[in-house]
Amino acid sequence: MNERLQKLYAYMDQFNLDAVLITLPKHVYYLTGFSSEPHERFLGLILPKGDEPFLLVPALDTEAAKAESTVSRIYTHTDTENPYEVLKRCLQGTVTRLGVEKSHLTMQRYEALSETLKAEQYVDVETPLTNMRAIKSTDEIARLKNAARLVEQVLRDGLKHVKAGVTEMEIAAELEYAMKKAGVGPAFATTVLSGEKSALPHGATGNRQIQTGDMLLFDMGVAAEGYLSDITRTFAIGDISDKMKEIYETVLEANLRGIAALRPDAVLADVDYAARQCIAGRGYGAYFTHRVGHGLGIEVHEYPSVHGDNRDLLREGMVITIEPGIYLPGIGGVRIEDDVLVTSTGSETLTTFPKQLTVIG
Amino acid sequence: MNERLQKLYAYMDQFNLDAVLITLPKHVYYLTGFSSEPHERFLGLILPKGDEPFLLVPALDTEAAKAESTVSRIYTHTDTENPYEVLKRCLQGTVTRLGVEKSHLTMQRYEALSETLKAEQYVDVETPLTNMRAIKSTDEIARLKNAARLVEQVLRDGLKHVKAGVTEMEIAAELEYAMKKAGVGPAFATTVLSGEKSALPHGATGNRQIQTGDMLLFDMGVAAEGYLSDITRTFAIGDISDKMKEIYETVLEANLRGIAALRPDAVLADVDYAARQCIAGRGYGAYFTHRVGHGLGIEVHEYPSVHGDNRDLLREGMVITIEPGIYLPGIGGVRIEDDVLVTSTGSETLTTFPKQLTVIG
Repeated sequence: MNERLQKLYAYMDQFNLDAVLITLPKHVYYLTGFSSEPHERFLGLILPKGDEPFLLVPALDTEAAKAESTVSRIYTHTDTENPYEVLKRCLQGTVTRLGVEKSHLTMQRYEALSETLKAEQYVDVETPLTNMRAIKSTDEIARLKNAARLVEQVLRDGLKHVKAGVTEMEIAAELEYAMKKAGVGPAFATTVLSGEKSALPHGATGNRQIQTGDMLLFDMGVAAEGYLSDITRTFAIGDISDKMKEIYETVLEANLRGIAALRPDAVLADVDYAARQCIAGRGYGAYFTHRVGHGLGIEVHEYPSVHGDNRDLLREGMVITIEPGIYLPGIGGVRIEDDVLVTSTGSETLTTFPKQLTVIG
Repeated sequence: MNERLQKLYAYMDQFNLDAVLITLPKHVYYLTGFSSEPHERFLGLILPKGDEPFLLVPALDTEAAKAESTVSRIYTHTDTENPYEVLKRCLQGTVTRLGVEKSHLTMQRYEALSETLKAEQYVDVETPLTNMRAIKSTDEIARLKNAARLVEQVLRDGLKHVKAGVTEMEIAAELEYAMKKAGVGPAFATTVLSGEKSALPHGATGNRQIQTGDMLLFDMGVAAEGYLSDITRTFAIGDISDKMKEIYETVLEANLRGIAALRPDAVLADVDYAARQCIAGRGYGAYFTHRVGHGLGIEVHEYPSVHGDNRDLLREGMVITIEPGIYLPGIGGVRIEDDVLVTSTGSETLTTFPKQLTVIG
């Protein structure tokens, strides 16, 4: 049994649980190597007290599970079976205290488990999973570096297609095409925002045509061997206003200050403050409407969250994003995002794409 | 207030709820027109008893919400605020009975709501939403037809890139590129499976090269104006075995029988049976490991589920997929999937791509 599963069994003993049920597909992947998207179907990794772990997978995923999972006990349920009844039969013994992922398990599943298994107490097991996932192993760091290297190559190639008149969607199409040609997929919907749309921190790539004077913002990543990258760069299309230049330099300085604040035992709120204060000091505090960053790994947003109320400490081996931005509604915005590894002495920035203001066209 | 919100208010009155909280982003879109991906951040549409509905959105989505939502009362929360405390302030009155989406609301959110709002009873409000969504309006049918037309054009263009030696991922790249050039995105990860991988009903597109003698399976769709298409076609690369030809003809007949069984008041289990029996009758029952189909609309898998235990009735205006398949582990598989509208007299197949066995190369 791998070390990750061993840690989860130890947690189960510590909290006197009768079983642990893992249903988040990314956690099933993290613990067994079996990667899948079950949609609404039931997928579970079950750790019964004093017994070997097993997978309960939709029947149509049986072959894939056998091929990928390091857990070799695999049970299946068909589309006409009640998966909770199947689970009960597989589990055999009584389950009173059940470990679950409370940020993933829905009320519907909670009610179904209460009805079939008769579980009475639900204990969140996300703490040990979060702690394990937060500290990246050498192998995980290598995968994250590879994902960063790949997305930067894609961005570099994609910039060749940028010129006035081309739409955001056409550029995003070139970028995702390049990803797939490199044998990987997007970590999330590739975002290309131009002009006034660059002021929408969560704006969607659309059919707006690039124009001279625009800011052009890319927020993108790839998923490679289960691990993700997440980078944002903002470019100038031809001449931009002095105001936007000032904003760019401010965001860049905030990005560098945030990265400079990274080291083991630094308080996350202080990292947020280091970047935010730089923006607030220039009078743009009201235009920086989100946290400074987030953990990155098998999911694009992981623990820890880099925001002003998070008193948790950074630890060696964490990988987080530092991504300050300034957004002027109706005018335009700038965000600069890097993926950064916390090392024993400070940090190593995994994304290496140049950050000085670059004019295209 | 639109008719959909009115129906939800009527349900709230009927079940004596103090408020309804909608958090599934697709439901927020369906009810307000505001489309977003809040990830782990809190997004809520709240219907307070006797008061106008309002949105509570992450601060960084404020501008997008204002631009898209028909609900004009919009409150925001920042990354450092507890969104449940903000929700409590916005709601004012006491909430004892709260309507929620039990298949989406997590235990974590349920516990947070119980702690801040002091809600005591949680009532599932998915029934009226499911019922509304299941019956498509004229406008929704037009969007679904458009999504089907677009994915078929993409598939037609994509087939030009298929030849021995090309990888699954390269073909998927061409397909998604064509989608984006057409101004739309994939409804789900575009799936291209070749040879023995076509026997994995949920297999992932990979780096396998197409070879003569392969079955080549495409499962893909686009999202256009909020509505999705979902089509599967399987092709032969050069000469294939007589066995695979027999399987193809069997699946095609099952697909046609499933479609022929569609009409208002037909039992869903009978539709499943019509297609399944055709496959079982030829001795391949054990190799058809999933349901016959599912509802389609703003999500790729919606109510109703077309499986052998579903005694619900089809109704005019439903759009479902019919997608039987036969999968021989280690050898290859065939699936043929159409999107079909239930009409007053029977059905209308929205996907029109030819289904006879087609040999490429």
